[in-house]
Amino acid sequence: MSGHVTLVGAGPGDPELLTRRAVQRLRSADVVLYDALVNENVLSFARRARRICVGKRAGRPAVHQGFINSMLVHHARAGKQVVRLKGGDPFVFGRGGEEALALAAAGIDFEVVPGVSSAIAAPALSGIPVTHRGRASGFVVVSGHAEAAYRPILEGLTAHSATVIVMMGLTEIHRIAALLMSRGWSAGTPAAILLAASTRDAETHVTSLSSLAIAPLETGGKAGTVVIGDVVALRTNQHRGTDDRSADNVDQRPRARVVCHRR
Amino acid sequence: MSGHVTLVGAGPGDPELLTRRAVQRLRSADVVLYDALVNENVLSFARRARRICVGKRAGRPAVHQGFINSMLVHHARAGKQVVRLKGGDPFVFGRGGEEALALAAAGIDFEVVPGVSSAIAAPALSGIPVTHRGRASGFVVVSGHAEAAYRPILEGLTAHSATVIVMMGLTEIHRIAALLMSRGWSAGTPAAILLAASTRDAETHVTSLSSLAIAPLETGGKAGTVVIGDVVALRTNQHRGTDDRSADNVDQRPRARVVCHRR
Repeated sequence: MSGHVTLVGAGPGDPELLTRRAVQRLRSADVVLYDALVNENVLSFARRARRICVGKRAGRPAVHQGFINSMLVHHARAGKQVVRLKGGDPFVFGRGGEEALALAAAGIDFEVVPGVSSAIAAPALSGIPVTHRGRASGFVVVSGHAEAAYRPILEGLTAHSATVIVMMGLTEIHRIAALLMSRGWSAGTPAAILLAASTRDAETHVTSLSSLAIAPLETGGKAGTVVIGDVVALRTNQHRGTDDRSADNVDQRPRARVVCHRR
Repeated sequence: MSGHVTLVGAGPGDPELLTRRAVQRLRSADVVLYDALVNENVLSFARRARRICVGKRAGRPAVHQGFINSMLVHHARAGKQVVRLKGGDPFVFGRGGEEALALAAAGIDFEVVPGVSSAIAAPALSGIPVTHRGRASGFVVVSGHAEAAYRPILEGLTAHSATVIVMMGLTEIHRIAALLMSRGWSAGTPAAILLAASTRDAETHVTSLSSLAIAPLETGGKAGTVVIGDVVALRTNQHRGTDDRSADNVDQRPRARVVCHRR
């Protein structure tokens, strides 16, 4: 019997935002390789699986991507049903493409289960639409982890032509804000800092491009997304109803806590 | 008892790509207002709901957005649990923002349930990562329905700096391809036309920017997404395994058929 690998998007954190297929694949998994950003409540669906954390953890380096690829191939060749579980969507800044190429090269059966990406879900859960008639007819998603990753995309972008969403590290966000202002975006352009979206530690901070440009952002270790553009001004407050969407239910949302138990 | 509205993302079509929360909200709904792009198998979770199609249908105009907003408010005020079901994610070209504003203005309790967006899922299901180290450190999502919607975004974009994803009408795609080439994108840039993603009518056509520029695209009525950029060359073939991911299971995926029964 030959094994199989599924690259699964875990969504933004709340297990209720997992897809049905993601849950099914977790339940039938023999081995789960997961990132540090994956929430414990999501992982709990993989009841019978050996769980291996391959993400970064404070004080320890991340497992090398080549080693992760090798582990996926190794477990699949041993006949295991393997899930590679990644925060959000596996093909949005998840290096899922590298894993797919490695699996294809090794002749391993695999599939991709798309997930709810925080790029879109974090704004939505804060009541911010990434597109809106008359305000933004498109959006741009960049990685904020390094200047080489975002500068080529943002420096050409016509000011106010699209919503800008920054993911994957917000330490450069003050430079990104300054770059946009230097390219004609107005200082008062609204921006929202979205931390730990979909968890009960979620925070939304609405600010402006000029405020964002002042200093590096301190996220207190929480995963963050920044959305910049006129759509932020359209933010609506959502209210949960009084039935099964009650406060009790809200409190059952997972904490943003990162779990990473190396074995 | 006061009603409640949930703006629910239905994902790309396959019910297995619905989130757990979307299924829960459909099951408990009294009324579902759905778009024509929503698949029948998705709708079937709303067993006890009155189902009202408000989408475009061949030969009939779409229901006016203002009227949809009024219907949402009306049913919520009548104490109903209302689901507004939209293809993909409700805040990506779904006019969900307009509905959220109308609900907030009317003082109606509402929430947003993000969905798997075809912008990311259609490429992923075809084995194409929208980001990849060394190829694309970000992506741009535009609506292809009108030049005014995509031109301001694409004409400034530095050639080959990001993956370009075009949704919502591909009749302009030849103009978009020509625009990108005029801005320095090479004629041989790979592009993929993705039709009816996640359904058993799914089709993937890999082509080049110059081929795309020749003529308007004929999608045969199927919903389509086009992805343009070097990442298309990284496309891997996924294989489904021999257990519950068998060919039988694949055949159970829904057809791309559009359902729209006006009442």
